[in-house]
Amino acid sequence: MMSDDPFRHKWWGWGPAGVVFDMSGRPDFEAFIESKGLSIAKTLTPRVARSDIRLPERRCAPALERALSELLGERLRTDEDDRLTHAFGRSYRDLVRLRSGLVERAPDLVAYPASHEDVERIIALCVEHGACLIPFGGGTNVVGSLEPDAGVRRPVVTLDLRHMNRLISLDEEAMTAELEPGMFGPQIEEALNARGFSLGHHPDSFLYSTLGGWIATRSAGTHSNRYGKIEDMVMALRVVTPTGTLVTKPLPAASNGPDLNRMLVGSEGVLGVITRATMRVHPLPEHEEYRMVLFPSFREGLEALRECVRRGAMPSMARLSDESETEMIFAAKPPETGLRRKLEAPVKRWFKRHGYERPAALVVAFEGPKEPALHQRKVVRRILQAHRGFDLGTGPGEAWKKSRYDVPYLRDFMMDYGVIADSFDTAAVWSELWPLYEHVTRVFEKTIELVTGRPGYVGSHVSHLYETGACLYYTFAASPVDSLEPSVLMDRYGAIKEAVTEAILFCGGALSHHHAVGREHQAWIEEELSTTGVRTLRAVKRELDPDGLLNPGSLIPPEE
Amino acid sequence: MMSDDPFRHKWWGWGPAGVVFDMSGRPDFEAFIESKGLSIAKTLTPRVARSDIRLPERRCAPALERALSELLGERLRTDEDDRLTHAFGRSYRDLVRLRSGLVERAPDLVAYPASHEDVERIIALCVEHGACLIPFGGGTNVVGSLEPDAGVRRPVVTLDLRHMNRLISLDEEAMTAELEPGMFGPQIEEALNARGFSLGHHPDSFLYSTLGGWIATRSAGTHSNRYGKIEDMVMALRVVTPTGTLVTKPLPAASNGPDLNRMLVGSEGVLGVITRATMRVHPLPEHEEYRMVLFPSFREGLEALRECVRRGAMPSMARLSDESETEMIFAAKPPETGLRRKLEAPVKRWFKRHGYERPAALVVAFEGPKEPALHQRKVVRRILQAHRGFDLGTGPGEAWKKSRYDVPYLRDFMMDYGVIADSFDTAAVWSELWPLYEHVTRVFEKTIELVTGRPGYVGSHVSHLYETGACLYYTFAASPVDSLEPSVLMDRYGAIKEAVTEAILFCGGALSHHHAVGREHQAWIEEELSTTGVRTLRAVKRELDPDGLLNPGSLIPPEE
Repeated sequence: MMSDDPFRHKWWGWGPAGVVFDMSGRPDFEAFIESKGLSIAKTLTPRVARSDIRLPERRCAPALERALSELLGERLRTDEDDRLTHAFGRSYRDLVRLRSGLVERAPDLVAYPASHEDVERIIALCVEHGACLIPFGGGTNVVGSLEPDAGVRRPVVTLDLRHMNRLISLDEEAMTAELEPGMFGPQIEEALNARGFSLGHHPDSFLYSTLGGWIATRSAGTHSNRYGKIEDMVMALRVVTPTGTLVTKPLPAASNGPDLNRMLVGSEGVLGVITRATMRVHPLPEHEEYRMVLFPSFREGLEALRECVRRGAMPSMARLSDESETEMIFAAKPPETGLRRKLEAPVKRWFKRHGYERPAALVVAFEGPKEPALHQRKVVRRILQAHRGFDLGTGPGEAWKKSRYDVPYLRDFMMDYGVIADSFDTAAVWSELWPLYEHVTRVFEKTIELVTGRPGYVGSHVSHLYETGACLYYTFAASPVDSLEPSVLMDRYGAIKEAVTEAILFCGGALSHHHAVGREHQAWIEEELSTTGVRTLRAVKRELDPDGLLNPGSLIPPEE
Repeated sequence: MMSDDPFRHKWWGWGPAGVVFDMSGRPDFEAFIESKGLSIAKTLTPRVARSDIRLPERRCAPALERALSELLGERLRTDEDDRLTHAFGRSYRDLVRLRSGLVERAPDLVAYPASHEDVERIIALCVEHGACLIPFGGGTNVVGSLEPDAGVRRPVVTLDLRHMNRLISLDEEAMTAELEPGMFGPQIEEALNARGFSLGHHPDSFLYSTLGGWIATRSAGTHSNRYGKIEDMVMALRVVTPTGTLVTKPLPAASNGPDLNRMLVGSEGVLGVITRATMRVHPLPEHEEYRMVLFPSFREGLEALRECVRRGAMPSMARLSDESETEMIFAAKPPETGLRRKLEAPVKRWFKRHGYERPAALVVAFEGPKEPALHQRKVVRRILQAHRGFDLGTGPGEAWKKSRYDVPYLRDFMMDYGVIADSFDTAAVWSELWPLYEHVTRVFEKTIELVTGRPGYVGSHVSHLYETGACLYYTFAASPVDSLEPSVLMDRYGAIKEAVTEAILFCGGALSHHHAVGREHQAWIEEELSTTGVRTLRAVKRELDPDGLLNPGSLIPPEE
């Protein structure tokens, strides 16, 4: 079904079939990677052939299947391709399992509802037949939120919402839009742009993730400094639960008891299925500008950003890479040509002589109504300059923008060579950010060395600013050259994940800033939210989904 | 106890003993009031004497009282003054009952904890002895959240948190402060200002309300455009519930499941007792300026504000009164003297001739770091001018600021003459705001006439701006001259409240923007949050407070 769907992942990796990371035209990159102890020039790690993957038998109540089939017709799928595409998200562990054909459990049925009423009926049928239901947006989840547990005996229906992809209404005066949850990032922007508006939400997964997924996971887009995280954009929700539909009203603000929108945002499909969302939207920006600025060090850049925040001059995006990630960015870029190429060496020497030996690169954006955006730019630039920020102009900024959605492809490329690669995110208040950065980086590097026997790559950037702190986003790569067994890879990944998460929590960081909890972070959710907090979630779950049908095993840890 | 406490209300009304609304020096005001059909020059309505009020017998478990007394010593009170001050909030109904000595139920014990541990022990004792517990901040609540139901047979302990009033810590780098919930507005600002910071939360009740109360009711301050509503300021909470303490972490942002802070903000004391809050704070503003601007009409002023919002030029405060309220504001101000007095008549004539026959007054403020504040002012002023906003300068703006906390005193003054007076708040998206304003104003006026047999005063202002809409704040006064029986007054008030609330909801407005639910809005909470939404709240309540001890009868309607 829909094999030409531009939003459907290839079975083994990120993005649609045929789109892969292109190593050509990046002459410095391979050398850089090798210099980090990552053996990408060595043997290519084989992937199993699609035809060698055997999915587990379907466990299905024939009566349920009949009823769903009557309701959905062609929009109920049971073929192996559809089941495989919906068996996992796109976490490192998911990819390892896919590449090696380790599929212990897959959904028994994949249902594609086309309306709110479809969702209501499907859920009612699942309740009637005791089937589990896993809501599925774009399948980009990286914390294990989309798979049925291996041991689940009940039939599992995965609910793929991509047919619910309409812009229902746009209120130009209120600047709000009612959207269906299955709209992918590009579909949302296309529909809104045509009417002169934008949602302004651009997570790294933008091309292949959906509104419903963003809401369910408390996602953040690159321009969250300006437009907020997804929870700040949600005005109202309609959510179908096994025991009834919850509807909130689109209000600019209210004092009508606890904010139920915030109980549903981040609920990761365990409380209900979002069938409609009223979102804040914005007039298309009059001004849009990306620049790159170099700092003598990550710390100096951080200080500059903190001063911007404190002076009330928040750029709409600020992505400050540490020295290590900056090195990677420059290594990965295509070489200059012509005059620029001739100037490259002298320019580099000049930078070195002037204190930019190991610089930190900031990509900074200003967007919105022209006058305030230009004013922000003026104030921000002055502050950055005072912190020895060297403005490289809009060229490298625009180049970053063009390639901003490429990183997940790079992970697939690295995995082709057996490299363990992933990204972890956290957030911390300003006073804890630097100590956290130093400690976690050290733990990262040491753990990689301990686990794989050699150094790897660890880099990070600040990606989202708040008055009180920032999000820190780590990327790492490690080459466990002695064994490429899937279980070994996953164990080693798990060891790194555990050590780094413990370090993050030890330093007061968030369990995740925008990747959600799922299964990957579940071991720490009680530490994060307190025992009473987790009990509160369980109580809501019991009330809305008393039979525990919705996305079981995700977010909320099982009761002891 | 603490009769010289500047934060303790007089037994019959708003604010500390001795402070009352001063009618002298306002020669035009009486005429204005009379012109609205309000008979304030007529008979003064008698209040019962304090000594004539008989409180109901205390229902107390002696063992509970002994245990609390051991724990708290002098901080456990059973005297009638203390019980009376804690029997009600300051809603219209509360004041009618107090003035006429109708106290059917009052707390049996008033406990003043001094620490988190005290609160934990008090709650444990209440659980042990099956006593109800009502958390109490400044007692300014206007929706009936602070009283025990008349029929409650269990002992009732009111927990007055004013001794928990310390600034625990200030993180200057993260711009966050850990505060105890019993701090009153002025105490918070005093403590933070001394360190160069401000919370920036100034609700109309600022002088007599507490941080805990603000959080429990989802309060909004005058400068919410800039600093957000209280829910936007809360970073982390510690909340004691009958089944355990819930603790959230101070994070700039997170993706760690549903946002539990937002489940606790607005919980109105029915889920737990807030014993600590980490709040976002701000450097003391370098620039602070209040101006008054006149518009030819309320509608023109509204359009101007909407354009400000859309152009990204949000003033830190904007309070736009409709024509009716503007008339009241000018009538209430002390007369000019000297040259200004001589100029008054010609100036008025000039305004009339130039289209400001029935103007709408906007008080607008700019505050924050100097440069952005001045830039905002520049852009805002240009937009206001384009909408024929006539800038009266900072004089009237500063005058407004000086008297901004006076309105509740005016209500007491009006009640001395039997006038029914109160304020209702709502919020709606821009596209619905004008139709709501027109419809609700008409319903207000008609209902007052229907209920009292004569016209009254209805005025309103927009008090808080959002990108998507605004808060609309109504004030009204009605003279039911034929009967001043408390039950008649309350019935008529109830009829007005009901009609207006129905009209607000019919037009898509919020049940309340910042006054909370309590008992006054409870009849509509299911319509506001949906049945499934209310079930969700009940489930949380059952989990955290299975015996239903916390503030029973408030917020969540009883199950049918």
